[in-house]
Amino acid sequence: MNFSCPILAPHTISNSLVKDPRKLQLINALVSHLHTFARETSLDHAEWTKVVEFLTRAGKESTDYKNEFILLSDIMGLSALVDELTHPKPAGCTDSCEAGPFYVPNAPEVPSGASLAKVGTTGEAMFFNGTVKNTKGQGIRGAKIDVWQADGDGIYDVQYPGTTEANDRGKIVAEDDGTFCYRGILPTAYPIPSDGPGGDLLRTLGRHPHRAAHIHFMLNAPGYDDLTTALYPSHSPFLGTDPVFATRKSLICQVVEERDPKRWEAMGFKNREVTRGRVWVWSFGFVLASVEEVEEFKRQRAKAKL
Amino acid sequence: MNFSCPILAPHTISNSLVKDPRKLQLINALVSHLHTFARETSLDHAEWTKVVEFLTRAGKESTDYKNEFILLSDIMGLSALVDELTHPKPAGCTDSCEAGPFYVPNAPEVPSGASLAKVGTTGEAMFFNGTVKNTKGQGIRGAKIDVWQADGDGIYDVQYPGTTEANDRGKIVAEDDGTFCYRGILPTAYPIPSDGPGGDLLRTLGRHPHRAAHIHFMLNAPGYDDLTTALYPSHSPFLGTDPVFATRKSLICQVVEERDPKRWEAMGFKNREVTRGRVWVWSFGFVLASVEEVEEFKRQRAKAKL
Repeated sequence: MNFSCPILAPHTISNSLVKDPRKLQLINALVSHLHTFARETSLDHAEWTKVVEFLTRAGKESTDYKNEFILLSDIMGLSALVDELTHPKPAGCTDSCEAGPFYVPNAPEVPSGASLAKVGTTGEAMFFNGTVKNTKGQGIRGAKIDVWQADGDGIYDVQYPGTTEANDRGKIVAEDDGTFCYRGILPTAYPIPSDGPGGDLLRTLGRHPHRAAHIHFMLNAPGYDDLTTALYPSHSPFLGTDPVFATRKSLICQVVEERDPKRWEAMGFKNREVTRGRVWVWSFGFVLASVEEVEEFKRQRAKAKL
Repeated sequence: MNFSCPILAPHTISNSLVKDPRKLQLINALVSHLHTFARETSLDHAEWTKVVEFLTRAGKESTDYKNEFILLSDIMGLSALVDELTHPKPAGCTDSCEAGPFYVPNAPEVPSGASLAKVGTTGEAMFFNGTVKNTKGQGIRGAKIDVWQADGDGIYDVQYPGTTEANDRGKIVAEDDGTFCYRGILPTAYPIPSDGPGGDLLRTLGRHPHRAAHIHFMLNAPGYDDLTTALYPSHSPFLGTDPVFATRKSLICQVVEERDPKRWEAMGFKNREVTRGRVWVWSFGFVLASVEEVEEFKRQRAKAKL
């Protein structure tokens, strides 16, 4: 008494009703890779259940200031890859990296030479010295540089409860020749949040959560492609084992100690602002691509891909 | 004044510290496919941000009774694939499919021939007639069959507020020769939840949320591999366009109308229980694999894969 009746062939479903061709491409590619992943690994139901629980927890535990899916993407190197794909840099230009979670738009504009660190900020005195040039080596006029960084305790202003004013943060208006400088605090290393699913993944991988010390920069100038990047001091620990794969060889800088009080004064420091008898001097030359150069680069890349 | 100092080569990170070889395999395969997906599609930062927001919403909107990640997996055909990979069936055995969200363990045991639908349950009378056999065609002794299904309104007992007693649900103890039957209600089609990210994906794909009508079964017998499956009546709409890819040609059954009141009585129905002058008669022969057959089948499959 077997009445199994194979009268219909199910699954004539296709995704051809998707109107947006880009969405169709993304969904088809995603489904194809998910299925291949499951087949390759013979993913079983118990493992799938654990993944469902893990992703559900990631959603539940995400807040406005700590998104676990961003952390998971960071830890798997996907964020760094997406940044590379989104912001391809023609040869000779400064490499980009992700803005991270602590960028705040509309930071207060300050002139070049200003101090970004309020009196009493924890950490050692630092003098940052920069140029903004194009690929021909010419200083760029009209450049503005958003800077944001942690203090000497590895903490951003927005992480302190009740913060209302910007600290270790500001939008510097460069000189007409593209040079700029600011006084501040040498940043120190800090860990990414590891109290949720992202931290669990790091622990499973036997990896630590500590990012190398760094300063974030976002540069813009009329006629040039925006650049979001970060610089790392070569003395920082964790440079080779960044949990989010954001360090770039080209972005690691030798920061030097200045022990001459006369030079501190020339930089704008008062003696009492300098602890441990030194000011850290950090210099870097940013190179921006023009909008036309980036367009041309993208065209070439798309052509090479075909 | 370019002080970019390429003194360190970052990213010497590997996943080789993962202790569990299976976890290492899964994580490496997942990362590899995610990266290939991003490269193939040139995934950009704006698209990545939308995916992050979508996944975060899926986590936030998931409840104990509606998990959006399960729905997304279902809609992308991943759940059906994982079921196939987890429960490979030797030739001649009944195909399996996912239990879905409405399975409740420890349903009340009832003898074969009982009614699973309380008086007053919406829907048309149905008589289900089954056999549980092995691959040699012999009736299996000691089989128990968990049954759960929606009523004539497409609603499960647990979906009614304040439900305390099982309805359209029960664990049937088969006869010693492996036959069993029960009286109940013909199930009707109902949609999967579409008020969250899963529903958004369906709409993007131009697909509907309606599952074909079905009855869930979970069979177990000493010495045999458990079987979780579902059967579909051939008269149901949506059979070829199941949103979760769970219908199988082999699980679609021709359900026949019985219009003879004498036969209704023989099945155990009272005349007043029969509306529209008919009882739907649904018959199916389940075939279970023995534990040894499944082990042997898995060994063969693993060998073929190598």
